[in-house]
Parts: sequence; structure tokens; C-alpha cells
Amino acid sequence: MISATVPIRVRYAETDGMSVAYHANYLTWFEVARTQLLEDIGVTYRSLEEAGFLLPVVEANLRYLAPSRYDDRLEVLAKVVEPPRARIRIEYEVRRDGRLLTTGYTVHAFMSREGLPLKPPQIVQDAFAKAFAEAAKQEG
Amino acid sequence: MISATVPIRVRYAETDGMSVAYHANYLTWFEVARTQLLEDIGVTYRSLEEAGFLLPVVEANLRYLAPSRYDDRLEVLAKVVEPPRARIRIEYEVRRDGRLLTTGYTVHAFMSREGLPLKPPQIVQDAFAKAFAEAAKQEG
Amino acid sequence: MISATVPIRVRYAETDGMSVAYHANYLTWFEVARTQLLEDIGVTYRSLEEAGFLLPVVEANLRYLAPSRYDDRLEVLAKVVEPPRARIRIEYEVRRDGRLLTTGYTVHAFMSREGLPLKPPQIVQDAFAKAFAEAAKQEG
Amino acid sequence: MISATVPIRVRYAETDGMSVAYHANYLTWFEVARTQLLEDIGVTYRSLEEAGFLLPVVEANLRYLAPSRYDDRLEVLAKVVEPPRARIRIEYEVRRDGRLLTTGYTVHAFMSREGLPLKPPQIVQDAFAKAFAEAAKQEG
Repeated sequence: MISATVPIRVRYAETDGMSVAYHANYLTWFEVARTQLLEDIGVTYRSLEEAGFLLPVVEANLRYLAPSRYDDRLEVLAKVVEPPRARIRIEYEVRRDGRLLTTGYTVHAFMSREGLPLKPPQIVQDAFAKAFAEAAKQEG
Repeated sequence: MISATVPIRVRYAETDGMSVAYHANYLTWFEVARTQLLEDIGVTYRSLEEAGFLLPVVEANLRYLAPSRYDDRLEVLAKVVEPPRARIRIEYEVRRDGRLLTTGYTVHAFMSREGLPLKPPQIVQDAFAKAFAEAAKQEG
Repeated sequence: MISATVPIRVRYAETDGMSVAYHANYLTWFEVARTQLLEDIGVTYRSLEEAGFLLPVVEANLRYLAPSRYDDRLEVLAKVVEPPRARIRIEYEVRRDGRLLTTGYTVHAFMSREGLPLKPPQIVQDAFAKAFAEAAKQEG
Repeated sequence: MISATVPIRVRYAETDGMSVAYHANYLTWFEVARTQLLEDIGVTYRSLEEAGFLLPVVEANLRYLAPSRYDDRLEVLAKVVEPPRARIRIEYEVRRDGRLLTTGYTVHAFMSREGLPLKPPQIVQDAFAKAFAEAAKQEG
């Protein structure tokens, strides 16, 4: 398993009339954690785009256990449990002071800018293979 | 089954660097359709809030089949298949020119402003019961 | 003067912890009215982009006189007072039941996708010239 | 003069079809810097709200000099040049690698939750007075 965690501080813009973070924002926070995870293993999403690969979301799921509020400091964890094949599945956990607030996952496919499905680029396959090998070594 | 459909025109603000609507916006469009469905059966979300009932999302799911682009005219359908009990489950379909682009569902619970779970207010139960009875008559 | 008005219904996603529409959303609503104004005179923003012209905002100003709330039905007016030259200046008025809530303006420049300044495309100059001529006739 | 600077990393959700950050997001980033500035002088916006004071934006202005892109690391500076009286005026500068991309300002008024204008609370006046006194001492 490989993972990355990013800090998120809830913006006023992200709250709604219930004085809690609007539920769609969690998808954006997932994106921030996903960006970090990809960068950590050496594949920036930006470089993928420049190489002609888009990585759109094909499925998303969220479970809201407890709300977050303006100015809350959250931790958003993204993790990949299995090396990706055609698709990448990423799981998420949002916490405040250790308490789990939200869980979810997204599934991504590789696509060309014209919308055609693509095989994952070799650099991505290699990067994940290397990251999983290192994680396995550390886990012992 | 009861349902409502709203037109959505994709805003430039809603697009992203892939020149398609960012995936989190579909949750917002679901909200617009849900608001309409509740209003159609005589229960505005606003009146619920004023009566002290919040209706937060406790689960959300989205499947993205094809992207939408800036200025696209979409139709967003919200439907409730079974009369709600403790929770309300609403399903969604987003279409452009009849073509299905996205499906999803949200599950909602009734809560007090203090975050305590509440039974669905009687007016909501009555409104859904009446709407389902009418729908059954029409289908019948 | 040429103008266009669009209806906006305030989304829950657009409210904030003050239970009013978050102030940045007005810029998005301005965009919706601007899109309509351009379409009304026969120039869709989409066609401009496809022809290689971007029309980024170079200045924006907003004055908030009174708030709007969830589910409010607003009218957003966009107007162009003088035929554009190198830059286009568009003014906005947001109203609810005739009451003025917000005013503002944006200034736009034509640019290439690479970020170089461009002269306004001839079709845009012609479209504005025609629209102003027609408006003058009607007012006349 | 008192000021605060926050780092902002441009989210994919914040980009638009031009592959640059959508212009309305700068208002949100201004908010993040403003929150920090208030916190730095010992007044959290959250505590103001809990004490019954809202601080809505009554005017906003933005000048866009150059765009920002996905994953850019920005620095957003908020500064208050004069101790606030009835209203607070805050100025902003957005930079990437030292290069100035955007400037702007917002003006805020104190209001009750019912929308009535209020005098700035004493704790805010004291906090700004103290912060300006310290800044003057440091500037010598």
C-alpha cells in the first residue's frame, strides 16, 4: 500500500448554509491528496497532461460520517492498495484530530485529450511498481 | 416513482483544465435537481431548514460515462424510487441530447442544527406519501 | 447600450456559513450573463475559443449592497455601454424582485492560447457594431 | 502596516477551460490570507462569528496581470495599511516566484446575523491598535 497525507484548512468559501463544509468539496480535497500521492511517487499530474494523458474520474464514492466546519484543520489521506492496471483506484480518509469524518474512493482511467481510452503510460506503471516494491520492503 | 428534471447549462467556472466540467460539480447539479423535486411535492428545503431540520448528505455515488463541456445544455433528473423512511435515497441521471453522461445517487438523513438525528418531519412523510399515491394513480 | 438578463437561482453550494451567497459566486453569475449577452449578438464564447481567442478577465469590481440567500431567484443583467475596442468592459446588476443587490463590472482582453495579446477578431467587432446600430435604432 | 502571507497551491478544481485558475478563485484565496491575518493579530473570524459579528464583503476589486496554472505554488499576501474604523480595507498581492500576478482589495463592514450594521467590536479595535503599535515599533 502506498499513501500520502495533506493538510486541508476549511475555507469559508467551502462552507454552506448549514455552517459545515459543503459535501462536494470533499471531492476537491481528495484531488489535493491524490495530486500529492502521484507527486510523491515521481509522477506529477501536470507532466502526465503535458505528455497527452488525461486521468479523468470514472467513479466516485463518499461516505460522510461527521461534518467539518470553517477553519477546521483536516488531514486527508489518499492511498492505493493495489498496483493499478487499466484503471487506478484511490481510497481516501478525512480526519480531524484523529477522528474519521469522511471516507471515499475514486476510480480513474487514462484517456487522450480527444477522449480515447489509453493504456497507462509506462512511466506511471514503473513509478507505481517501484513505490509498491519500496513499501513492501519497509513493511518488511 | 417520483421525479423532477432541471436544465443545467455548464458554466465556464465549472470547467477545468481538461476543458470538461470538473467532476465535483455534478454533486452540485444533483442538488439543484433535488431542490426541484422537493419543491414539486410541496416541501421546500428552505422551509425544512426554517423548521429546524437539516438534510445532510450521508452517502454519495457518481459514475461518469462521458464528459460535459462548457455551454452544454444538460438535463439533470432526480428520482425517488421508494417512499423514504429514516433516510431518503435519491437517484440521478445527467443527459445531453438524450445521451446519458453521468448517473449517481445520494442518501440523506434528517438532523437537527445541533447534529442530532431526527425522525423525518410529518410534513415530509405526508408529502412523499401523497406524491407516491398520485404517481401510482397516473401509472396505474 | 446592449444588454442581456439571465435568471439565477441561488444553489445551496453557493451559500456560506452566513447563510448568504458567498461573494465570489457573483463573478460566476456575471459570467453566465456575459455568455448570454455574447450569444445574443451572435458570438458564442465557445466559437471564440475554437477560433483560438481567449477572453480573460483583466479587471473585476463588485459592490455588495444586500445579500442573497439560498433558493433566491435573481436576475443578473450584463450590459455593454460602449462598443469595445482593444478591451471589452461589461457592467452588471444583480436584482431580486427589482431590488438591486450587487453591481459590478469586468474588463476583458483578447489573447491567444499562448497568452499573447490579440486584436479583437473581426467577427466580434462586426457583431458589436451591428448590435449597437440596432440598439440605437430602437432607442431612436 | 500589518500583513500576512499564505501559500496556495492551485487545485485542479480551480482551473478552467483556459487551463488557468478561474478568476473568481482569487477572491477565495484572498479570504484564506485574510483569515490568517486576523488570526495573527489574535482575532479569529470564527470567534467573531460566535460573538455575533459577521464581517461581509461590501466591495471587492481585482486586477489580473498574469495567469496562474494548475499546481502552481502561489504566495498570497494580505495587508492592512490603516487601522480600521467602521470598515476594514484589506489589500492583496498574489505572487509566483516573486512575480506579481494579481492585486486587489476588499472592504468589509461589521454586521449582526440579522443584517444590521454594527460598530467594530472592541476586541477587534484593540487587536488592530496593538498590531499597528508593534508594527510601528519594528519599523522604527
